[in-house]
Amino acid sequence: MRHNQGVSTTPREKMIVSAALLMRERGVGATSFSEVIQRSGAPRGSIYHHFPGGKAQLIEAATRYAGDFTAAGLLAALRHDDPVRAVHEFTQTWTKILRQSDFGAGCPVVAATLEGERSPLARAAAGAAFAQWESLIAQALAPYTTSARARSIATLFITAIEGAVIIARAQRSTAPLQRVAAELEQTLRQAIAEAPASTRAAPAALDAG
Amino acid sequence: MRHNQGVSTTPREKMIVSAALLMRERGVGATSFSEVIQRSGAPRGSIYHHFPGGKAQLIEAATRYAGDFTAAGLLAALRHDDPVRAVHEFTQTWTKILRQSDFGAGCPVVAATLEGERSPLARAAAGAAFAQWESLIAQALAPYTTSARARSIATLFITAIEGAVIIARAQRSTAPLQRVAAELEQTLRQAIAEAPASTRAAPAALDAG
Repeated sequence: MRHNQGVSTTPREKMIVSAALLMRERGVGATSFSEVIQRSGAPRGSIYHHFPGGKAQLIEAATRYAGDFTAAGLLAALRHDDPVRAVHEFTQTWTKILRQSDFGAGCPVVAATLEGERSPLARAAAGAAFAQWESLIAQALAPYTTSARARSIATLFITAIEGAVIIARAQRSTAPLQRVAAELEQTLRQAIAEAPASTRAAPAALDAG
Repeated sequence: MRHNQGVSTTPREKMIVSAALLMRERGVGATSFSEVIQRSGAPRGSIYHHFPGGKAQLIEAATRYAGDFTAAGLLAALRHDDPVRAVHEFTQTWTKILRQSDFGAGCPVVAATLEGERSPLARAAAGAAFAQWESLIAQALAPYTTSARARSIATLFITAIEGAVIIARAQRSTAPLQRVAAELEQTLRQAIAEAPASTRAAPAALDAG
């Protein structure tokens, strides 16, 4: 997930982006209002104005933001109607994030899940984000394979990359992500080759007039 | 990961198991000495006796314990020399843990990774645990496919199941784990069918005299 604070305009948006950036590095528990204020440059008094529900509301908003941000990244990777290329592009994005953060940054949506007992709204937002990502990938695979297979490959795509980002951080190496990408690409190639022709719709011709 | 506190004998072991059980539910940050003492029933004064390095040492020991515990579970699942059955058994174990904990329990080794900036020893132990699991699976696959493929499938196995446990918690459903298991089983079947015969060693005859 790439975040560009430059595109945030309102103080509320800046606080949400700052919370997501802190969550992906240190988890929900250690993401404090005071650090969000410091990082976002927001006036100290404004945080309860924008988030009257307190930290729980901020974390939920940050989880939604991170979910939408990653969905946009997935859509961009899927824009060529080439699922194998999408795996490659999405993996490259994560490789950059891991290297640029010295393996310090992970996925804020995973962070929201793991501390979900104490922030059920954020956990629910995380569940919805994962479902949204899965749906985007399954839709992109629909022209190439059966709908059941498209869905299970979409789940494999998301789970394997999320898992690989975690193992990459633990081992301070992008090699696990590269191995997972190779396997996902192989899975996609085989599913596309094996699907009965009757289950495949023609890919949408995006550049047709 | 199943944990049976009944088999722990020493107070030190009880504290380690208690820390791992707390970590898998709430992460490293929220796992406190006082709760470890309460859960393990250890005398309050004993924790610094057993862990003079403080919480960092306890978390590192708990991460190692969790790594070894899961390795034992993987070895048990792999005992039949049937990788497809191993995926099924390992997934069943996780399904039980998720249901019994009402989706509250995850993997302590993931928890150790995500808060690794503040506990680098635990993060290193997590990286070693993931490498150990990968190695066990790759060894089990060695008779069936090339060594490069065995390794990348092992990485896919671990990353996809870890990712699926996270998504299952967020969505409070074991369905993501079931979809991932179906894909992993398919990957294994295809890799075994496709590997050139020359790369396959005969599986060890475990029950031969």
